[in-house]
Amino acid sequence: MDIATVLGIVAGIVLIASAIILGGNPIIFWNLPSVLIVIGGTIATTFIKFPLSSIFSTFKVVKKAFFQNPLSPEKIISEIVELAKKARKESILALEKVEISDPFLKRGIQLAVDGVDPALIREILDTEINFRKARHKEGQKIFKGMGASAPAFGMIGTLIGLVQMLTKMQDPKSIGPAMAVAILTTLYGALLANLVFLPIADKLELRSEKEILIMQMMVEGVLSILAGDNPNIIEQKLISFISPKLRELVVKEKK
Amino acid sequence: MDIATVLGIVAGIVLIASAIILGGNPIIFWNLPSVLIVIGGTIATTFIKFPLSSIFSTFKVVKKAFFQNPLSPEKIISEIVELAKKARKESILALEKVEISDPFLKRGIQLAVDGVDPALIREILDTEINFRKARHKEGQKIFKGMGASAPAFGMIGTLIGLVQMLTKMQDPKSIGPAMAVAILTTLYGALLANLVFLPIADKLELRSEKEILIMQMMVEGVLSILAGDNPNIIEQKLISFISPKLRELVVKEKK
Amino acid sequence: MDIATVLGIVAGIVLIASAIILGGNPIIFWNLPSVLIVIGGTIATTFIKFPLSSIFSTFKVVKKAFFQNPLSPEKIISEIVELAKKARKESILALEKVEISDPFLKRGIQLAVDGVDPALIREILDTEINFRKARHKEGQKIFKGMGASAPAFGMIGTLIGLVQMLTKMQDPKSIGPAMAVAILTTLYGALLANLVFLPIADKLELRSEKEILIMQMMVEGVLSILAGDNPNIIEQKLISFISPKLRELVVKEKK
Amino acid sequence: MDIATVLGIVAGIVLIASAIILGGNPIIFWNLPSVLIVIGGTIATTFIKFPLSSIFSTFKVVKKAFFQNPLSPEKIISEIVELAKKARKESILALEKVEISDPFLKRGIQLAVDGVDPALIREILDTEINFRKARHKEGQKIFKGMGASAPAFGMIGTLIGLVQMLTKMQDPKSIGPAMAVAILTTLYGALLANLVFLPIADKLELRSEKEILIMQMMVEGVLSILAGDNPNIIEQKLISFISPKLRELVVKEKK
Amino acid sequence: MDIATVLGIVAGIVLIASAIILGGNPIIFWNLPSVLIVIGGTIATTFIKFPLSSIFSTFKVVKKAFFQNPLSPEKIISEIVELAKKARKESILALEKVEISDPFLKRGIQLAVDGVDPALIREILDTEINFRKARHKEGQKIFKGMGASAPAFGMIGTLIGLVQMLTKMQDPKSIGPAMAVAILTTLYGALLANLVFLPIADKLELRSEKEILIMQMMVEGVLSILAGDNPNIIEQKLISFISPKLRELVVKEKK
Repeated sequence: MDIATVLGIVAGIVLIASAIILGGNPIIFWNLPSVLIVIGGTIATTFIKFPLSSIFSTFKVVKKAFFQNPLSPEKIISEIVELAKKARKESILALEKVEISDPFLKRGIQLAVDGVDPALIREILDTEINFRKARHKEGQKIFKGMGASAPAFGMIGTLIGLVQMLTKMQDPKSIGPAMAVAILTTLYGALLANLVFLPIADKLELRSEKEILIMQMMVEGVLSILAGDNPNIIEQKLISFISPKLRELVVKEKK
Repeated sequence: MDIATVLGIVAGIVLIASAIILGGNPIIFWNLPSVLIVIGGTIATTFIKFPLSSIFSTFKVVKKAFFQNPLSPEKIISEIVELAKKARKESILALEKVEISDPFLKRGIQLAVDGVDPALIREILDTEINFRKARHKEGQKIFKGMGASAPAFGMIGTLIGLVQMLTKMQDPKSIGPAMAVAILTTLYGALLANLVFLPIADKLELRSEKEILIMQMMVEGVLSILAGDNPNIIEQKLISFISPKLRELVVKEKK
Repeated sequence: MDIATVLGIVAGIVLIASAIILGGNPIIFWNLPSVLIVIGGTIATTFIKFPLSSIFSTFKVVKKAFFQNPLSPEKIISEIVELAKKARKESILALEKVEISDPFLKRGIQLAVDGVDPALIREILDTEINFRKARHKEGQKIFKGMGASAPAFGMIGTLIGLVQMLTKMQDPKSIGPAMAVAILTTLYGALLANLVFLPIADKLELRSEKEILIMQMMVEGVLSILAGDNPNIIEQKLISFISPKLRELVVKEKK
Repeated sequence: MDIATVLGIVAGIVLIASAIILGGNPIIFWNLPSVLIVIGGTIATTFIKFPLSSIFSTFKVVKKAFFQNPLSPEKIISEIVELAKKARKESILALEKVEISDPFLKRGIQLAVDGVDPALIREILDTEINFRKARHKEGQKIFKGMGASAPAFGMIGTLIGLVQMLTKMQDPKSIGPAMAVAILTTLYGALLANLVFLPIADKLELRSEKEILIMQMMVEGVLSILAGDNPNIIEQKLISFISPKLRELVVKEKK
Repeated sequence: MDIATVLGIVAGIVLIASAIILGGNPIIFWNLPSVLIVIGGTIATTFIKFPLSSIFSTFKVVKKAFFQNPLSPEKIISEIVELAKKARKESILALEKVEISDPFLKRGIQLAVDGVDPALIREILDTEINFRKARHKEGQKIFKGMGASAPAFGMIGTLIGLVQMLTKMQDPKSIGPAMAVAILTTLYGALLANLVFLPIADKLELRSEKEILIMQMMVEGVLSILAGDNPNIIEQKLISFISPKLRELVVKEKK
């Protein structure tokens, strides 16, 4: 799990909580109907917009994005270079029994071992990448949609509260607390959108870009192995996919 | 009908309704002039913007999107593969008498049976797809437009209510209820936009994408049958149009 | 004139007016300074942004878009097919004396009769289409600009009214009516933008798309006639420019 | 100077001023701190964002856009046609001594006279056009940025005023005027953005498009002269750059 | 450091500060919980969205953008021309010992000296440029994200303050100051976004464009040197990368 993410979530909660506690009784910030309207309304619109299967698979993606470390490109490069060396020394068929960590890379190697035509391998793997990309896009869309719905239902809840308050305004003393409750819904919507849904959408986007880049690197690697390229040249090729800083890591690891 | 959509609509209505009922007399949330301004104003602008025929055909599309199940790509693939087998065993002319579920696929097969040139078949079917796409786009545009108009007329209604309230402010007791009524219009506009118009627009977009993809798959299928391709190869080709999960379904169905 | 447009305008005015009248004295909704600020400010910014000639020619385009029926593509197709038949039976020179309804089509036929090179005809007519398109775009831009300016000046007027009201707040009784007047400007701006300027901009966009499509169809028609194509083939070609529904109309008309 | 611009600016000022004067003492609309915050804040952010040189050169561009008439394309066409005639009758070298009104056209002719290769002339002049375009874009960016900053600092000023007012609310009589002053800042920001910065940005965009089009026309003209084209053909070529209405002017001028 | 930037920052602070001091006791504008919510919330979301390494490297980029003068393109051109002269007189190997100011140019020259293939040099340097560009983009994204988060958390803080104030409204005298404190958070958010985060994001964008342009110029220079081009022609080539004004500087420097 990302250290920055942990820091961010903890810091965000602590700061908002301390500002609330410094101001007095934190109980006044809890109101069940407001919670129902904001969270319920947001979930309801999400269910109307997206098919059930997309919603569930998105939550799996989110879990992965936050709790699982992303693939390390420098390790993947070492792995591909090792495979290339073995294929050169023995034969491409020898790769069939090598244990391969990533399922996508494994599928690519299997296709190469099976003697599938390189052009077809590229087409099959590219189709795979495109579906992965589309699934990621849909996940980002779902969270961006929730980030737009939450403040809208926050406002709707506040309007409902205001209408209720204004129609029974005989007792001036009750105005303050009633209005406070009405405003709570807007607060919930703003917090959910800005501290939860929108940051997750952005995070998913960044993670998706990195994952897709590594998958593209794997495609190049598999095809280079199949073409019988020199392992050193393969390494040079793959290194151009990663940032200069990571390149130094690869060089060090090699020595 | 989509289970998620039903869940979403029911949940949305129940949550908003319960929040209203928990707060007291729900009658205060009904105001005819507010309904007239929001719904009337939204319909009026839609009529000014779009030709009558587009508006009516859009409502048919919406009905279809919500109450009719989308075409299942794995069934369409099986159907095309069956057609390909029959065409190979007997002749392409034998397809004339086969019953075909989808009218678009039927038209494509008919063109192939009639001996039309493959390039022309592709052109005719692509033109058809483009018009379908354009009609879908227009439908999404209409609902997005309504999702923008409803909050605008909600605000207009609230402004009208405020002006009326403020000019007869002699009786301070009447201010509260009058203001409540004024705010209702904004509430109506926000609810309609966020719970109805915008989710429908998004849903239409997703449905359109799926429908167009299946139509493109059918075009490939018809042309492959006409080219006399091996049914297995046709299946491999068409499968690349669908997601990995659905592919497993096709494989299972086949066995 | 579009029936939908008439319905929309009448319905919009009736609904807003009835909501105002139901609420009491409608005179309170009239305030000259507010009208001056909103309409005046919107016109002023439009004059600063666009040259005089563009503004005047846009109003002509609007008048045409609302009061003149658009060209009917099925009639234009019949007309072109008739021309093609005549050109085949007699000679292309015979088209010189045929009366042609649309000036753009007429110009194209004249160029063909004059023996201008087909490539040059296409270039000349395409340039014409591009200028028509650019003029339409500018018209839409002007109305979108007014749709953005009107609410802005509505807010400016309300701010002016609020400042005036707040500085002479000694008499609490006068606050209500003064504030009502201040709010009126915002109401005017919102009504103008949402019921007039923005729907017109959208309408112009739709009309422009249709007009340009028909012009492109005419170019194809003229060049096909010049190439001496079979009238039936010309009809097939032109029909692909229009929607499936309209195609049936053409077929019926032909019989 | 554009008549429409003059009309727009005068009308805008007169309307806002009359609405203010009709409402009573106009002095209440002047507040120095508000002016400082809005104008100062807008200028400050502009200085942080853009280099000094860009800001100054932009103001020169604005002055030119408002006080200098744009190049008239029909006169430029006549001038180029005259040059083409002279080059044909005498020789291209004869153009060296002809007085040429526009410096860009002059530079192009000079390059042609110097015997530079046509491909290189086009490259040199296109580079020039691209830099002009980039400078224009930067000018529009600066004014759009000011149009976004002014309302933001208007709101900031109002918030500052509100905080000051609310902390000394012991005297209820002073609330009104203090709040009026606070609101003034928002008014200033809205007026500056909607009546000054945003219209100027739009105006600059339109002017830039026209200027660039004329420069592109000049490049074609210079290269046609160098190629020894017939002056009539050159005229036909250049005319396609301008609108149909202007074309009639060229034809008249010629007669 | 940019003079305009210094002027802008000083002016912005002085103006806001003077407006605050003119209005009375500036202490009322300080509130620790508000600071915690706005700055804390903004930092927290930034940490959730972006990996730690990107955030830190962005702050280095900002420091460089504000405190380090950008590369002067005219000096780089002179340097490259000098290198070209030396390479022509002696040999390309003679460049190995020349001191080169910019590390990117140095790397390019080193590759040329090492006899790497020109196509490969271009590919290696272009990859480098693309990574630089991506890093710059990420920096701008981080600051734009902070410019969007700050006002959102400003609003969240104000909502928290309002809820707290409204629930203990028994003492009317305390309403004013409590509301003032609530509004402060919105003020902080607006100031941070409009005076700090958004201008920095814009500044970074401009700086990035300039830096990338110079890097592209260096690539051209290195390849021209390797091709053995005439130093004068190299100068002409590189000059086309810079604006006409800077070109005059190069010409002067040369004399």
